[in-house]
Amino acid sequence: MNATRLLIVNRGEIAVRVVRAARELGLTSIVTHSEADADSLAVKLADEAVCIGPAQAAKSYLNIEAILAAAREVGAEAVHPGYGFLSESADFARRVVEAGMIFVGPDAELIERMGNKAEARRTALVAGVPVVPGSPSAVADVEEAVKVALEVGYPLLIKAAAGGGGRGIRTAADEAELRAQLPLAQSEARAAFGDDSVYLERFIERARHIEVQILADGERAVHLYERECSLQRRRQKVFEESPSPALDEAARERLCASAVALAEHVGYKAAGTLEYLYDDDSGEFFFIEMNTRIQVEHPVTEMITGVDLVRAMLRVCLGEPLGVVQDDIAIRGWAVEMRINAEDPDNGFFPSLGQVERLTWPTGPGVRVDSALYEGYRMPPFYDSLVAKLVVWDEDRASALVRAGRALDEFTLEGFTTTAGLHRRLVEDQAVRRGDFHTGTLELWLDTASAASAPSVQEQAS
Amino acid sequence: MNATRLLIVNRGEIAVRVVRAARELGLTSIVTHSEADADSLAVKLADEAVCIGPAQAAKSYLNIEAILAAAREVGAEAVHPGYGFLSESADFARRVVEAGMIFVGPDAELIERMGNKAEARRTALVAGVPVVPGSPSAVADVEEAVKVALEVGYPLLIKAAAGGGGRGIRTAADEAELRAQLPLAQSEARAAFGDDSVYLERFIERARHIEVQILADGERAVHLYERECSLQRRRQKVFEESPSPALDEAARERLCASAVALAEHVGYKAAGTLEYLYDDDSGEFFFIEMNTRIQVEHPVTEMITGVDLVRAMLRVCLGEPLGVVQDDIAIRGWAVEMRINAEDPDNGFFPSLGQVERLTWPTGPGVRVDSALYEGYRMPPFYDSLVAKLVVWDEDRASALVRAGRALDEFTLEGFTTTAGLHRRLVEDQAVRRGDFHTGTLELWLDTASAASAPSVQEQAS
Repeated sequence: MNATRLLIVNRGEIAVRVVRAARELGLTSIVTHSEADADSLAVKLADEAVCIGPAQAAKSYLNIEAILAAAREVGAEAVHPGYGFLSESADFARRVVEAGMIFVGPDAELIERMGNKAEARRTALVAGVPVVPGSPSAVADVEEAVKVALEVGYPLLIKAAAGGGGRGIRTAADEAELRAQLPLAQSEARAAFGDDSVYLERFIERARHIEVQILADGERAVHLYERECSLQRRRQKVFEESPSPALDEAARERLCASAVALAEHVGYKAAGTLEYLYDDDSGEFFFIEMNTRIQVEHPVTEMITGVDLVRAMLRVCLGEPLGVVQDDIAIRGWAVEMRINAEDPDNGFFPSLGQVERLTWPTGPGVRVDSALYEGYRMPPFYDSLVAKLVVWDEDRASALVRAGRALDEFTLEGFTTTAGLHRRLVEDQAVRRGDFHTGTLELWLDTASAASAPSVQEQAS
Repeated sequence: MNATRLLIVNRGEIAVRVVRAARELGLTSIVTHSEADADSLAVKLADEAVCIGPAQAAKSYLNIEAILAAAREVGAEAVHPGYGFLSESADFARRVVEAGMIFVGPDAELIERMGNKAEARRTALVAGVPVVPGSPSAVADVEEAVKVALEVGYPLLIKAAAGGGGRGIRTAADEAELRAQLPLAQSEARAAFGDDSVYLERFIERARHIEVQILADGERAVHLYERECSLQRRRQKVFEESPSPALDEAARERLCASAVALAEHVGYKAAGTLEYLYDDDSGEFFFIEMNTRIQVEHPVTEMITGVDLVRAMLRVCLGEPLGVVQDDIAIRGWAVEMRINAEDPDNGFFPSLGQVERLTWPTGPGVRVDSALYEGYRMPPFYDSLVAKLVVWDEDRASALVRAGRALDEFTLEGFTTTAGLHRRLVEDQAVRRGDFHTGTLELWLDTASAASAPSVQEQAS
């Protein structure tokens, strides 16, 4: 491989994940950290660590100048951005390469191309991949939007071209709403992403979110099957699994082939994910966007395919050819991932902070934990609330859900509240057990659950 | 399944393992425990628990009357014996069945037949499975032994017919040693197993210990490939892996087919293991004994096949047909198991006792921990020293050894000494990395290691 010193520009569980992969590949891992993260698990496990600034992400994990200075200081030869933060910043990728280092991700041009949602749509269409009906490019103003909307049809999503991860999205049920929401969406996009381009997309209400994992070396691409990520709250994934209970073999084959076609069409190099909406009734799927980085939910794919995605991504980005062909990649069993957030599901998912006083991970067969928690660790209040990914594998879906319940029963964390209890209820839910859900199901379920619990709250108050 | 209330007559990590399997199968788990084990992890995790007597195993875990009384008291419908203790007691199996319960293991007659090593040898020969050259049955006295030894050839092993797990074995390099050792072996066998029958076997010095995992429902048997268990100390396995680095596809096929033939020949029902000696040079293998129970090292097989052996064994013993055919069972990747014992490898493996003050398990991809430890737990001094099994899976053998090192680096236990440090050195050892070892290798390695460290000890003393 063309580098031995790897700078990891991230924090939390993904920094730990990359440290582990680096160690297993014989790379020296150097973790960047903010002042608030000096005692993080990633810092403890890494070979080296370097501080890049104050707690606020803008001054550290998003601070390109500080990161490049640190990279020079420690003699980094490659940079892994993890997910979030600068992982999909074409500017960062370009600056890393200009500084003579390898960026562990695709080329800046490709990040830019796929990062612009309207551009990504056009690329998908050229590659023969279906997309959600929508505006062919960014809409300039309200009048153009109203005209385009007549063709696309209501209800609509107004999406920031530079958005991602569920951010920068508004809905419009009719023309009046579109006229009201569009200027707001534009100014919001400018504030959040420095780019006010927005485009329109048909809002497919009862769709699943299914995504395909890709691995490519610039010449060839393979897929590692799909992930089902429909259980979301506020467009944030909560519970993921692989494979998807919605697909039969023919649908799986069609979906995955389209992802490989698109990745090869753009000459993709790295791990990447193509996100689709999938319509259960018609069997139609629509490409929505590509994430040019490793994803939070990558472990479920690792569990069913046996492929270590983080290592494989590092290998191709550090100059090795893709060492695997499609026929080598098979699904074994079923995997689910439960995102454990430091939030109180019984109190509007209000962030919960504190020190880890007592911590017991579930162990035994088929259980994997990816987390940056340790006993004594005090969570800094500056970052997102994901504190652990509890991943469970078993021979089939029904068994995996039962095992997930068993694992949750064994998990204990004292010091703050988490969403583990929500997952305990989810894995027992009949709709979840049947695999019968779409992207709106969890929010409906949560509304019903809180409505159901409301009387008892009143009783307590009276 | 023909039972819902499962009594688990064991302790430590295997009791925890069976509790987990029971939970995942929807069975009620009831753990028996000695007075010394009232605060064990198995007791905490099980649905119910029942005390069966004082700490000494003879008064609790080996006390059939107390166990049957407890079984009646809690309304148990099936009994899982784990490994060790009463797991291979035909008498116990018979009493369980006479009391109207299901024994999770083969019939008492089969335990008896395979438990008697001389009888097992004869059975293997009838089934066409090669055995180590040896006496056709127990030798009555020294004169008969000397006569038989001329045919078998020196060096010899004198083995207690009722022994097992490496116990009840002596060596004889020549006739003089045979004359001296035989009476000692007989009286030792009588004291340890209540049966002074011994038989002779050729001592194959540079052999590997390779065993084949079997699963059978009384009608059909399948194999789940082999485990390599050659790294032993005092005939106790220390480090196991699956598959074996010594076998090519043809040898694997021959070995596993012989195990299936023997299991089907005796109409075996349950999980079981056939142990073999394997001669690297000639490619010959010799059946040595069958273990009619789940084994300590079963997780490596689970990791490479994806089959949950403990659940599968429960299912067939509780009346379900074998739900799997041979073609469904394939090897994916490589798994290693490191037995973490509470012993001090730098002090003659002297038992180390104490309270678990701080405990961090390794986590992340490909890592599994089976253990009964928890923070605050004080180990009772009455039982064996195995405190954790650290099991690692990866795509190939070299990667699995590297990952094993990574996992060991993440593992911390404060409160007493363990053999984890020994494993850390083992996974770096060149012979281990090459897969080049036999059953005597580890002891030689340990002798050399302590010889090498001797000067520095002297320096410290002077």
